[in-house]
Amino acid sequence: MVTDKLPKAVVYKNGILSFLDQTKLPLKVIYEEQKTCGQIYDSIKMLKVRGAPAIGIAGAYGLVVSVKKYINEPVDNFITELKKTGEYLNSSRPTAVNLSWAINRIIKKAENSICNSSEELWLELEKEADNIYNEDKEICVNIGKYGAELIYDNFGILTHCNAGALAVSELGTALAPIYTALNQGKNFRVYADETRPLLQGARLTSYELQQAGADITLLCDNMAAYAMSKGLIDMVIVGCDRVAANGDTANKIGTMNVAVLADYFKIPFYVACPSSTFDNMTLTGKDIMIEQRDSHEVTHFGGVQTAPDNVKVLNPAFDVTPNELITGFITEYGIIKPPYIINLENILHKGRK
Amino acid sequence: MVTDKLPKAVVYKNGILSFLDQTKLPLKVIYEEQKTCGQIYDSIKMLKVRGAPAIGIAGAYGLVVSVKKYINEPVDNFITELKKTGEYLNSSRPTAVNLSWAINRIIKKAENSICNSSEELWLELEKEADNIYNEDKEICVNIGKYGAELIYDNFGILTHCNAGALAVSELGTALAPIYTALNQGKNFRVYADETRPLLQGARLTSYELQQAGADITLLCDNMAAYAMSKGLIDMVIVGCDRVAANGDTANKIGTMNVAVLADYFKIPFYVACPSSTFDNMTLTGKDIMIEQRDSHEVTHFGGVQTAPDNVKVLNPAFDVTPNELITGFITEYGIIKPPYIINLENILHKGRK
Repeated sequence: MVTDKLPKAVVYKNGILSFLDQTKLPLKVIYEEQKTCGQIYDSIKMLKVRGAPAIGIAGAYGLVVSVKKYINEPVDNFITELKKTGEYLNSSRPTAVNLSWAINRIIKKAENSICNSSEELWLELEKEADNIYNEDKEICVNIGKYGAELIYDNFGILTHCNAGALAVSELGTALAPIYTALNQGKNFRVYADETRPLLQGARLTSYELQQAGADITLLCDNMAAYAMSKGLIDMVIVGCDRVAANGDTANKIGTMNVAVLADYFKIPFYVACPSSTFDNMTLTGKDIMIEQRDSHEVTHFGGVQTAPDNVKVLNPAFDVTPNELITGFITEYGIIKPPYIINLENILHKGRK
Repeated sequence: MVTDKLPKAVVYKNGILSFLDQTKLPLKVIYEEQKTCGQIYDSIKMLKVRGAPAIGIAGAYGLVVSVKKYINEPVDNFITELKKTGEYLNSSRPTAVNLSWAINRIIKKAENSICNSSEELWLELEKEADNIYNEDKEICVNIGKYGAELIYDNFGILTHCNAGALAVSELGTALAPIYTALNQGKNFRVYADETRPLLQGARLTSYELQQAGADITLLCDNMAAYAMSKGLIDMVIVGCDRVAANGDTANKIGTMNVAVLADYFKIPFYVACPSSTFDNMTLTGKDIMIEQRDSHEVTHFGGVQTAPDNVKVLNPAFDVTPNELITGFITEYGIIKPPYIINLENILHKGRK
């Protein structure tokens, strides 16, 4: 299997939680033990762990690890502290729906469990975090299975940012179809946008695809039109952070650029994501809050200043791709095609069965 | 005047040629004296001087300075050495038409001059290089004049790469309308794409616009769609390196991305350039040779490695924007609108009168 050598973003073993510090990749592979909710908050905010599903898993395990110190409290107090800590961790990244989804699931589990002690309850929550991890893994396997059907020999596939093994439990969302197709022996090329400002494509996507033995080529974000105009790209697959009820999709800044280009060059543009990313409480992309990040990310790189002092900077973490530019969503239940307002809702119902 | 404090790319004074080393901006302002054709070749190739018109000026003065050592040779020998050196300097950047245009103009001047000595001939060539500089300056002033008529109060203007004072004799091509409109007291915002891999937008455009007191905001290349979707951008102005007879336009990599986005968001997209950039010997964009540059530019930044070892890289220096995406060309003779196959040819005839 091509994926056997892939690194894992979040590891929970024998009660110890570790995150692979992705800000250090590809040059250093360092797993950092996470001990307090302050440290976990910082790790998520500083993008040491990133990618919507991985943030959810990190939040779930992070919450469980953070509240272990309250297991000798009465159950009521324990649940109060659990909720407080959950609210705090949830504020580390406002856009990713998976974080609040996973944290709320742990809290609901606590509220619905009938336990004699906080210690017993804590063990239930630990099991629930394991469930979140294992369910995510199964989802990725299924996204890979459905998405791989879209990939043919000699294809060129462009991806943006990192929605691979490093962004989830295992395997990936956007990269799951690619890994699955590689496992099936298909022969194709992959192109990774470097993804400024934090270069997740250069640092992470190139790295994990190279580990898997894929034919991977790195390009700057502004070279996508060139690659498309030269006939190098046959499809685009990206991940996402939040999908509104009408199919408008928030993902890493630059995704909308690629979607507009794919539309111009008549190249299919797919979003691969678990159904948990569909947020039917958010009606359209206009309702999605876009986090603005520190200007230093744009004006500096690797300790080197690349822009004049005090220049104003635009640094949105995400953009929202209009639904009309999306060929389909690759989910654990299959490919969803337009009209999204109907078909996304149907999938959510299927998920709830 | 807002432009009084702008730096100059190429300075020729008292027989001494200096280039501002633009690879060191915005942190260091260093003028390097250019003494040999080998040094001048390297300076152009390494982008110490860059921007199509500035390369032409640098090539003309560079050729003149390089052949000064032959002024005691017979005129025939002098012209032979002149041609050899010209051919060598011309090979430093294959895409920019201005370089070969300026070098050929110096060589033709030599062939058509009737001089008794190489020394006398050399003085004619020095004067011809001055003429190239002064004509470029006048062209920029006129591009500024015509382009400024397109700029209104409260506009947001996006530019890509650097086609400003640092890319020409003085003032700029894409930035000339902006500086002229600032001189006219108009009140508007400018947005600069950082322009990976060499960050000319972050390092040069932000710098010179800041020096001029413009309201300048820097963004990563992949944020242009976000800025357009938020209504921040009312027009795009870029420079160019070569325009084919049908209007297809080679410019810094990423220009085509911006043009496709502007088309999607229905934002006017203008190319500002001197008529010398129109190459009616090149029929369409397909005939424009695209230089592929070193992969190190993409995999490293500021001495920091940002991608895994040995990853394959795409690094085209230019892309070719299809004519259908270009609203108009801002030239020294006015704005040229489609159909380009007719109207560009007309302008070339006007230029030859």
